[in-house]
Amino acid sequence: MSKLSVDLDTDNVRIVGDSLPEMPWQDKPEGSEAPVWRHSENPVIGRNPVPGIARIFNSAVAPYEGRFVGVFRAETINGRPHLHLGWSDDGLAWDIETERLHLVDEEGDDYQPNYAYDPRLVRVEDTYYIIWCTDFYGAALGIAQTKDFKSFVRLENPFLPFNRNGVLFPRKLNGNYVLLSRPSDSGHTPFGDIFLSESPDLVYWGKHRHVMSKGGQGWWQSVKIGGGPAPIETTVGWLMFYHGVTGTCNGLVYSMGVTVLDLDDPSKVKYRSSNFVLTPEEWYEERGFVPNVVFPCATLHDADTGRIAIYYGAADTYVGVAYTTVSDMLKYVIATDEVVADDHELGRM
Amino acid sequence: MSKLSVDLDTDNVRIVGDSLPEMPWQDKPEGSEAPVWRHSENPVIGRNPVPGIARIFNSAVAPYEGRFVGVFRAETINGRPHLHLGWSDDGLAWDIETERLHLVDEEGDDYQPNYAYDPRLVRVEDTYYIIWCTDFYGAALGIAQTKDFKSFVRLENPFLPFNRNGVLFPRKLNGNYVLLSRPSDSGHTPFGDIFLSESPDLVYWGKHRHVMSKGGQGWWQSVKIGGGPAPIETTVGWLMFYHGVTGTCNGLVYSMGVTVLDLDDPSKVKYRSSNFVLTPEEWYEERGFVPNVVFPCATLHDADTGRIAIYYGAADTYVGVAYTTVSDMLKYVIATDEVVADDHELGRM
Repeated sequence: MSKLSVDLDTDNVRIVGDSLPEMPWQDKPEGSEAPVWRHSENPVIGRNPVPGIARIFNSAVAPYEGRFVGVFRAETINGRPHLHLGWSDDGLAWDIETERLHLVDEEGDDYQPNYAYDPRLVRVEDTYYIIWCTDFYGAALGIAQTKDFKSFVRLENPFLPFNRNGVLFPRKLNGNYVLLSRPSDSGHTPFGDIFLSESPDLVYWGKHRHVMSKGGQGWWQSVKIGGGPAPIETTVGWLMFYHGVTGTCNGLVYSMGVTVLDLDDPSKVKYRSSNFVLTPEEWYEERGFVPNVVFPCATLHDADTGRIAIYYGAADTYVGVAYTTVSDMLKYVIATDEVVADDHELGRM
Repeated sequence: MSKLSVDLDTDNVRIVGDSLPEMPWQDKPEGSEAPVWRHSENPVIGRNPVPGIARIFNSAVAPYEGRFVGVFRAETINGRPHLHLGWSDDGLAWDIETERLHLVDEEGDDYQPNYAYDPRLVRVEDTYYIIWCTDFYGAALGIAQTKDFKSFVRLENPFLPFNRNGVLFPRKLNGNYVLLSRPSDSGHTPFGDIFLSESPDLVYWGKHRHVMSKGGQGWWQSVKIGGGPAPIETTVGWLMFYHGVTGTCNGLVYSMGVTVLDLDDPSKVKYRSSNFVLTPEEWYEERGFVPNVVFPCATLHDADTGRIAIYYGAADTYVGVAYTTVSDMLKYVIATDEVVADDHELGRM
């Protein structure tokens, strides 16, 4: 047991946020010891879901007006990814729109990224933000906002290239928007840590801090790590799922890890599991366009029950759902906590 | 002759800025056709200039209170670079301080970068800014300010890693500071274009634009390019020297190029020479720690005469000086103008 867990009653950890009783849910299978368990009918989105789209994966969802909305990475049948909206009553059966999501720039002119992938979808106050990987003379972060999921305004790119895995916090901290990202290179980046940046206005960004290093005792996150779903506010800290990548003789393997960041200064890691909590095991995770990938991009969660549904891309081909609870996660992350590099300190500037 | 030159009287192009009659100067050698010519007594700083420092190169200078001040990349005899101040009456003979430049952070605490290299030194209004390559979990830009060259306050890093070759414009544009940079990777980056970013306050940065692509018809800038001295304001546009890099079987070769950026929107290139204007030819450019490097980092220039002295690192070992005039440069850049990629358009966002 970690030194840090002494005074923490993990049974009483609560999600700080909205109720969401209609979210998808399945109880942990009888006898299971797993910290995270898969939806029994995975994948929830299969191949060729609508005409012209070969695969949907690495996508984000949110509750909206009694239903669920999704922003999907849709790999078209020419192999280039774009963003498509989708809707669902239960968060499991999805109607995907056949037209691409239509963006305009701040002057109101049409704006179509050359490509768009790995979207995140985060509500801050009364606005929803989509952050994706966009083409800015190389991979960089794009960001757009909507209030009604009908008109989408593309904002200034937050950062110079090269960057991926932009994840906005669901509320401002100290008056500023906070965005996690993973500085990259121009290719299939063979390195990568998670950083944090702040903005007063979503135009200018700064106060960049290092949050988490790849590495640790285990090997599953030895090559690179990247943010996933928006961090979930809890009474103990920001509960965050992320992806960790290891290398093999036959390519990279993407697993899911869990960490808790400091509530007031999320550049400090409070707890970080030395183990993955989900790794490719099922056929839809091991087989596909990119074998051996689980890549979490969103959660739905219910403050009343502490339930969490994790949406993840599987093998760059499918969408899967997995479940856990805030209490399960806090117990697990504390029991398996490790300090990696200077993670637990203020992210050196 | 370029289509753009028709209406431009290059003999009447003027530097917009201060008089500096005391700057170093030598006339173009009799009979020379060179657009840029070297100081006859190069290098102006040789090996082992002061105890503990093996080499000085890639360094920046500015006029200050009737003398010249320099911020030097000083490679210590353990091989790690730090910043040292130096002073000169004529801009050619330099007294280098033996102690490192002492920085404090914004709280007034001592701040010492793990390493610091390739500094630029730019005055904006009444403040001097040093921008250097710093260690932020990888190569990134550091920035500090001073008004008296006695106390130096280190500011927030403008960008996430990985980045190099940060060059500030010498005045605000549309109320914002403007910083050129070259997004990189974590190693000896095998690619790289010049980008531009704006800041209202030197804390938060945004409105990132692409300025110039590597490449073009020639091969001398085929691998990467990076900003050099602060752009010089002229009546025609921002005259900018930069470095361009090509690859050979025995490593990289760094030459100097010249471009003119639009006065109001310097993300647009007005003219760009297809040729280098200085390339390693002399022994101090061809021989040294990194053979075959000319790397410009600063200019001194005189608005009355249009004279320009360019300070450049040679072979990562020496400091050289070369001369030209604003009129020579405008004639040359127009005569050899080429459009590379979408350089002459608004830098796509």
